[in-house]
Amino acid sequence: MSETREQILEEIKIQATKSSCSIALQDNTNNKSDNNKTDNNDTDDRGGVSGGVGCAIKHRHLELEKIDEEVSRLLLLKSKLGDEVSQMQKFILKTPKGTRDYAPRQMMLRQTVLDKIVAVFKKHGGEAIDTPVFELKEVLTGKYGEDSKLIYDLKDQGGEMLSLRYDLTVPLARYLAMNKISNIKRYHIAKVYRRDNPAMTRGRYREFYQCDFDIAGAYDAMLSDSECVKIVSEILDVLHIGDYIIKLNHRQLLDGMFEACGVPADKFRSICSAVDKLDKSTWLEVRKEMIEEKGLSPETADKIGEYVQLSGDNELIEKLLADEQLKNIPVAVKGLEDMQLLLKYCNIMGLNGKIIFDLSLARGLDYYTGVIYECVLKAEPKILNGCNEQQDIIGSVAGGGRYDNLVGMFDAKGKKVPCVGVSIGVERIFSVLEAKYAAAGIKQRTNEIEVMVISAHKGLHEKRLSILNVLWNQGIKAEHFYKLNPKLLNQLQYCEENQIPLAVVVGDSELAKGMVKLREISTRKEEDVLLTNLPDEIRKRLQC
Amino acid sequence: MSETREQILEEIKIQATKSSCSIALQDNTNNKSDNNKTDNNDTDDRGGVSGGVGCAIKHRHLELEKIDEEVSRLLLLKSKLGDEVSQMQKFILKTPKGTRDYAPRQMMLRQTVLDKIVAVFKKHGGEAIDTPVFELKEVLTGKYGEDSKLIYDLKDQGGEMLSLRYDLTVPLARYLAMNKISNIKRYHIAKVYRRDNPAMTRGRYREFYQCDFDIAGAYDAMLSDSECVKIVSEILDVLHIGDYIIKLNHRQLLDGMFEACGVPADKFRSICSAVDKLDKSTWLEVRKEMIEEKGLSPETADKIGEYVQLSGDNELIEKLLADEQLKNIPVAVKGLEDMQLLLKYCNIMGLNGKIIFDLSLARGLDYYTGVIYECVLKAEPKILNGCNEQQDIIGSVAGGGRYDNLVGMFDAKGKKVPCVGVSIGVERIFSVLEAKYAAAGIKQRTNEIEVMVISAHKGLHEKRLSILNVLWNQGIKAEHFYKLNPKLLNQLQYCEENQIPLAVVVGDSELAKGMVKLREISTRKEEDVLLTNLPDEIRKRLQC
Repeated sequence: MSETREQILEEIKIQATKSSCSIALQDNTNNKSDNNKTDNNDTDDRGGVSGGVGCAIKHRHLELEKIDEEVSRLLLLKSKLGDEVSQMQKFILKTPKGTRDYAPRQMMLRQTVLDKIVAVFKKHGGEAIDTPVFELKEVLTGKYGEDSKLIYDLKDQGGEMLSLRYDLTVPLARYLAMNKISNIKRYHIAKVYRRDNPAMTRGRYREFYQCDFDIAGAYDAMLSDSECVKIVSEILDVLHIGDYIIKLNHRQLLDGMFEACGVPADKFRSICSAVDKLDKSTWLEVRKEMIEEKGLSPETADKIGEYVQLSGDNELIEKLLADEQLKNIPVAVKGLEDMQLLLKYCNIMGLNGKIIFDLSLARGLDYYTGVIYECVLKAEPKILNGCNEQQDIIGSVAGGGRYDNLVGMFDAKGKKVPCVGVSIGVERIFSVLEAKYAAAGIKQRTNEIEVMVISAHKGLHEKRLSILNVLWNQGIKAEHFYKLNPKLLNQLQYCEENQIPLAVVVGDSELAKGMVKLREISTRKEEDVLLTNLPDEIRKRLQC
Repeated sequence: MSETREQILEEIKIQATKSSCSIALQDNTNNKSDNNKTDNNDTDDRGGVSGGVGCAIKHRHLELEKIDEEVSRLLLLKSKLGDEVSQMQKFILKTPKGTRDYAPRQMMLRQTVLDKIVAVFKKHGGEAIDTPVFELKEVLTGKYGEDSKLIYDLKDQGGEMLSLRYDLTVPLARYLAMNKISNIKRYHIAKVYRRDNPAMTRGRYREFYQCDFDIAGAYDAMLSDSECVKIVSEILDVLHIGDYIIKLNHRQLLDGMFEACGVPADKFRSICSAVDKLDKSTWLEVRKEMIEEKGLSPETADKIGEYVQLSGDNELIEKLLADEQLKNIPVAVKGLEDMQLLLKYCNIMGLNGKIIFDLSLARGLDYYTGVIYECVLKAEPKILNGCNEQQDIIGSVAGGGRYDNLVGMFDAKGKKVPCVGVSIGVERIFSVLEAKYAAAGIKQRTNEIEVMVISAHKGLHEKRLSILNVLWNQGIKAEHFYKLNPKLLNQLQYCEENQIPLAVVVGDSELAKGMVKLREISTRKEEDVLLTNLPDEIRKRLQC
C-alpha cells in the first residue's frame, strides 16, 4: 500500500513538472473550486492585459485547457491519495488477522492460571526452557504433515529461511538433539503460530499460548507416562474449572487393531486421522470418509467401528487381550499390556473415576508412538450458554502422548530420546474461566494496589510523595493521583471503583500532630495513625 | 535446499527409468564396488550364455557401457544427495542467527530477576498487557528512522504485510489509540526482534527480552516522570547488581541549547543523535561528526561542546537558567524548569546521590519529547574481567523518557495521549548476574524438588508411587527415578548432585511398621517417620 502511495506521489510530481504552470497543492480537499476560481481570475487578468491578438488568445486558451486538464488530473490523484491515507489509518488500528491484544483484566486471569499450572509443573520437578520464536524452516519441514501449509514464513533477508514455531514439541526435540540431552523434565509456556482460518468467536486464534510439560529419557514402561496423566489431573483440580475425564489410548493398540481389521499398513496414519474425528463427527460420517475417501472396504470399516465404540477400564483390556483378532498381533498385545500398567499406576495415584480407556481416541499428530491421552471438560450448561445442551462435552483442555522417534529425526546418527508429554489447552481454559467469572458477576482487579495516598486539600503533593516513598520502601503497593491538587471526592471514588482496600488521607491538621487518617474504603471507617507507625498499621489491616 | 533434494531424487527416478536395466538403490554408502561387482557378474553370466554372435556381443557391450555410465551417474547423484542430507542435518542443529535457546539454569535466573522487577511494577500499580509478536507493517513504518531496515518482515501469505515487533513502545501506542485508552500504568515483558549484526559475545542478540513500564495520561508536570526514575532505582536496588547512577536530561532543553548554539532547527534530531554517541565516543570524535558529516560550523560545534560536558545538580540548573544564551529561549527555560521540579521530586523520594543532571545524555530514539533518563551501572572490575578497567562504566541497564506525540500518530484525529516510560535492560542485567554468580561459584538449582522418594531395595515402585501421590496431593515437590528398581547409591548421589534437601527412603522393614526413613541429604541424618505423619515431618524440616 505504501508503494501505491509513493507511486501516486511520484505521478503528482511528474504531472506538476510537465504542467505549463506551477500549481500549488493545497492541504484541504475543498480546494477544487478555489483552484479553478484562482485560475480563472488569473486568466481574466492576463486576458485583459494582453487582449486583442487572436492567435495569442487561442494559444492562451489552449494553455488554459491544458492547465484545467492537469488540475483535474492532479486533484483526482490527490483524492486517491487521500483515500489511501484514510484507508491506511483505518487499516493501522487493528492487530493482524487472527491475533489480539491481551488487556490487563485478561492478563491478570492468565497470570493467575499460569502460576497455578507452573506450580504443578514444579511440584513434579519441571524445569523451564525457552527457544526462539522462529526456527530454521528446515527444522519444521516434514513434521506436521498436511498442516505444514499453516506455517508462517519470514521473508528471506539475506541468508536463512525462517519460520515461526508451530508448536513447542518440535523445538524441544531440536533442542534435545542439538544439546545431546537425554534426560529432562521441562516445561515451556510460549506463543505458537498457525495460519489457520481463525474462528475467533470460538476462541481459535492464529497466535496462541501453548503450555507444555514433557519428560524425556529412556525409562521403565508407563512410569513417566502415568505421571503426565497425574499432572493433567492435578492442574484441572487446582483450576476448579469443572468436571473432567481423561481419555487414554495407545497408538500401538490402534495400529494392531487396524491390522486386525485388515487395513493396509500404509493407511494406518490416514485411518487414524479419520478415527480422530469421532469427537466431532458421528461414526456414520467417519465410516463414509473411511470408505469413500480413504478407500477401505465397508467390512473393514465396520470392524473398526466395532472397536472404536468401546471404552471402559481394566475389564475391557482383559476382554481385548482375549480377543481372537487381536491376541495374535504383537503390537496390539504390547499396547494392551502398556494400558494395563498405565491404568494400574493411575489408580495408585488416585485417578480412578477420572480416567477412561477409550478406543476412539486417536490424536491428530503423526509423531505419537505409544500412550495417547486427552482431557475433556464436561460442560456446565448454565455457564456456557452458547453451547448445545445436548452435547455434554465442551472439548479438549489437555492432550498429549508418547513420541519416541521425534528427537532422533534431528540427530545425525538418529539417536533416539524417548519422550512423553502433555500440552495444557490454556486458551480454552482462559475462555471457560472468563465466561465463568462473567456469569458469576466477578470483577477481577487489574492491579494490586493496597493503599491510595490522598490529599484532603490543596498544596500537599510533596507530602504525598514523601509518604509514598516510605510505603514503597517498605514494600507496600501504593499510588496517588498524578495531580497537584486532586479533588478529595474523585480520589475516594477512584478507590471504591478500583477496589483499593485502604486510603491514607493527608491533611494539615493531622500532619501538625505527625499523623494521617487511615481509611478503610469498604467500611469508610477512618482512624488517625502516627506517620511513624503507618506501614505497620497498614500491614495489620491488610492481613485481616 | 529441500527442493534441490527433490530435484535430485526426481532426476534419479528419470535416470532409472531411462536406464536399460533396473538398478536397485541401496541404503549404505559403500555400495559402489558392490554394485559394480554385481553388474559385472551379471554381465559375465549373460556373456557366457549368449557368446559367439559378434553383433549380439557388440550390442551387449554397448548396452553394458550404457549401464555403467548410468550407474556412475546415479551414484554421483546419490552421493550429492547424501551430502545434501548430511549438510542439512548439520544445518538444522542450530538456532537462527542471532538467537539462542535458554537452558533451565538461565531460565531460573531470568525468572528470579523478572519476578523481582514485576514486584516493583506492581508496587506502583502496574497492569500487564500483551500484544501480538507481529504487527501490520504500517504500524512500525516511520517510527524508527534509519533503524527501520532492521525490522523482520514476514512473507506475504495472501493479505496482510506483517513485521515482527521492534520494541514494545510502538505496540503500546497502537494499543492505546486503538482502544481509546487515555490513562494506564502498564508493564509489558516480551521478546522483540532486530535484524542487527549480532554481537553475541557482548550479549547482543536479534531476539531479546524487553521489560517496559509506562505511564500514560495527561497529568501535572513531573509527577509521573519522577515515579519512573524511582522505579528504576528500586529495581536496581532489589537486584543487588552493583552501584549505579541515573542520568537525567530533557529533550526540550537540548533543543533550546542547540538553538542557542546556532544549529538549524532541521538538524536538531541528527545533532541529538551525534550527542547520543558521547557515552561511547570522545567529544573530539563527536565534534568531527557534527562538522564533517552533519555540516555544523566549528564554532557551533564548540558551543555545543561546552554545554554537553556539563553535569551536576540543582546548582547547575540555576546557572543555566541565568545563562545569557539560554534564558531567552522558551523551550530551554521550559526544559530547565521541568528539570528543577524533577530533581526536587526525586530528592523527596530519596534518590539524591543516585541521580545526576547530565547534558550529554541525548537518547537515540526520535520520539522523546521531554524528560529522558538512562541508568548506568558502575563496573565491578573483579567481576567483569573482560572489561577495560580504565572504563568505570559498563553500560546502560535502563533508559526511557517522555514521548507525548507517539499515540497521536495512530489516532485518526491525532488525539494525543502523553506518555512517559522506562525500559529495563534485562538482557544486560542477566549477563551481569550470570557473570557474578559464575565468579562467586554459585551453582543455582534448576528445579525446586524438595523430596526424592527412594527405593531401598527391589520391588517397591508401586509403594513409591503411592507415597508420591500423598506428597503431591499435599503440595510437596517430589520426584522419583522412573525405574522399577533403581540402585540405592544412584538415587542418593542424584539427591546430592541436585541439591535436593530430603529423601524418603522406602524399605520393607520400615513399611512393616507403617514407617519410612526420612533422610536429610546434606547431613545424611536419617530418622524413622510414620507414613501418616510424613507430610508434616517434611514440612517441619523444610522450614528450618
